[in-house]
Amino acid sequence: MKVLPLDDRVLVEPIEEEEKVGSIIIPETAKEKPIMGTVVAVGTDEEVQELIKVGDKVIFGKYAGEEIKLEGKKQLLISRSDLLAKVK
Amino acid sequence: MKVLPLDDRVLVEPIEEEEKVGSIIIPETAKEKPIMGTVVAVGTDEEVQELIKVGDKVIFGKYAGEEIKLEGKKQLLISRSDLLAKVK
Amino acid sequence: MKVLPLDDRVLVEPIEEEEKVGSIIIPETAKEKPIMGTVVAVGTDEEVQELIKVGDKVIFGKYAGEEIKLEGKKQLLISRSDLLAKVK
Amino acid sequence: MKVLPLDDRVLVEPIEEEEKVGSIIIPETAKEKPIMGTVVAVGTDEEVQELIKVGDKVIFGKYAGEEIKLEGKKQLLISRSDLLAKVK
Amino acid sequence: MKVLPLDDRVLVEPIEEEEKVGSIIIPETAKEKPIMGTVVAVGTDEEVQELIKVGDKVIFGKYAGEEIKLEGKKQLLISRSDLLAKVK
Amino acid sequence: MKVLPLDDRVLVEPIEEEEKVGSIIIPETAKEKPIMGTVVAVGTDEEVQELIKVGDKVIFGKYAGEEIKLEGKKQLLISRSDLLAKVK
Amino acid sequence: MKVLPLDDRVLVEPIEEEEKVGSIIIPETAKEKPIMGTVVAVGTDEEVQELIKVGDKVIFGKYAGEEIKLEGKKQLLISRSDLLAKVK
Repeated sequence: MKVLPLDDRVLVEPIEEEEKVGSIIIPETAKEKPIMGTVVAVGTDEEVQELIKVGDKVIFGKYAGEEIKLEGKKQLLISRSDLLAKVK
Repeated sequence: MKVLPLDDRVLVEPIEEEEKVGSIIIPETAKEKPIMGTVVAVGTDEEVQELIKVGDKVIFGKYAGEEIKLEGKKQLLISRSDLLAKVK
Repeated sequence: MKVLPLDDRVLVEPIEEEEKVGSIIIPETAKEKPIMGTVVAVGTDEEVQELIKVGDKVIFGKYAGEEIKLEGKKQLLISRSDLLAKVK
Repeated sequence: MKVLPLDDRVLVEPIEEEEKVGSIIIPETAKEKPIMGTVVAVGTDEEVQELIKVGDKVIFGKYAGEEIKLEGKKQLLISRSDLLAKVK
Repeated sequence: MKVLPLDDRVLVEPIEEEEKVGSIIIPETAKEKPIMGTVVAVGTDEEVQELIKVGDKVIFGKYAGEEIKLEGKKQLLISRSDLLAKVK
Repeated sequence: MKVLPLDDRVLVEPIEEEEKVGSIIIPETAKEKPIMGTVVAVGTDEEVQELIKVGDKVIFGKYAGEEIKLEGKKQLLISRSDLLAKVK
Repeated sequence: MKVLPLDDRVLVEPIEEEEKVGSIIIPETAKEKPIMGTVVAVGTDEEVQELIKVGDKVIFGKYAGEEIKLEGKKQLLISRSDLLAKVK
């Protein structure tokens, strides 16, 4: 079973906030600060397909996206305009 | 009798929330989370006709679309911008 | 005497809600749900003239359009963007 | 002395609501319903000049337009987007 | 010393409301009704220069424009979209 | 050290309100009325570079722009859309 | 580890407000006034890449951007439209 985001959305699996992603620490208490995730699917829009690839780590606003539960894991459908940066 | 959605809308029959759709479980208590449905008709807009086909399972926001009752079944007329993803 | 809708509006005669339109039943108590009507005139916009014809049955939001009284009958002037679907 | 509407506005002389315009009766108590008027001048916009002619009877929203007093008569400067229909 | 309006603005000297401009009487008590003025300068935008000339009498909304004081006289800088009509 | 405005902004040094600029007096008590300033830098946008030159006196809304302090002097970064007129 | 801003965003390291940047002093008490920072990464948008370079000092609104913590340092992801000026 696969979720294929429509238009310029991407499907993102959030990285648990207690994790330490290299040297970027997203403070757990910072309730409205951006958070990170791993892209698991990219939408049908060609521009977003060039910009973002499956496996990319992305930073997005805390309240960005719509949450779904997929194979027991919380995932987010996020529009391109709510993706702030990639992390390499 | 047939309902033909206009412009970029699709007609969707929601999947009852107590159903288990493969491994995606939409928790019944999650009142504002996206829900799923099966597309039963696609609008007159050519772009949406390429993107979405009858029979596609789609995920959409809980409050997306306008509800009608068709042959006893609750159905939703949903604009493309409120369709978040397809499920395969 | 004739009412000619301007731009992308259509003139619609609502179908009384107690009527049963084929198998589509619009529940009388559902105060904000879409309702149906018959198109009696189509606006000056060419695109809407291709999309909608006089005699078409259309579904539209409960609060869509502006009401006028024409030869004793309540009618609605509704913009294309508020027409959700055609019924055949 | 003449008032020349600018851009896509038209100058409209409202038809007194107690008048009976053919079979269209605009109920006096219907405070937010559309009302009628006669176009006395058309704006500088070419598209609106094709769509609307001096002498046309038009239907517009109750609160559409800006009121002026011209030779003792109340008149309205109404934008094209607030004109709902012509009456013939 | 000269004020040159930028873009699609015009500089307008309001006509005192107690004045009688031909047969158009702008009632002094009508606090939100359109008022009149004489154009004293036209903005840098070419379209507005074709539409409006210095010396034109214009009608505009009561709260349109930004007020300045020029050589003792109250004047208004008004955008094209707030100019309703010319008077001849 | 130089401030280079980005896009269609200009850097303006406000003219103290107690000053008398030719015959234009900006009343000190008129808290929401437009005020004047001298352009000290023009943004990177080509259109605004044609429209506005360093040294131009401009009129702008009282609350337009973002204030910075430059070499002890209060200056404003103002977008083109908030510049109402030039004064010559 | 690197943060690559998406679209027209830039990554900015704010300059501590107690610092004196040449002759521009950003008063610490001025809570809603623009502040400064050094660009550490430029987004994927080509236009913003021409306009802004890594190392540029930029002025931006106090509440512009989204804050992240990178290698212990607070940094901001700011959209082009919130960048007011460069400082040289």
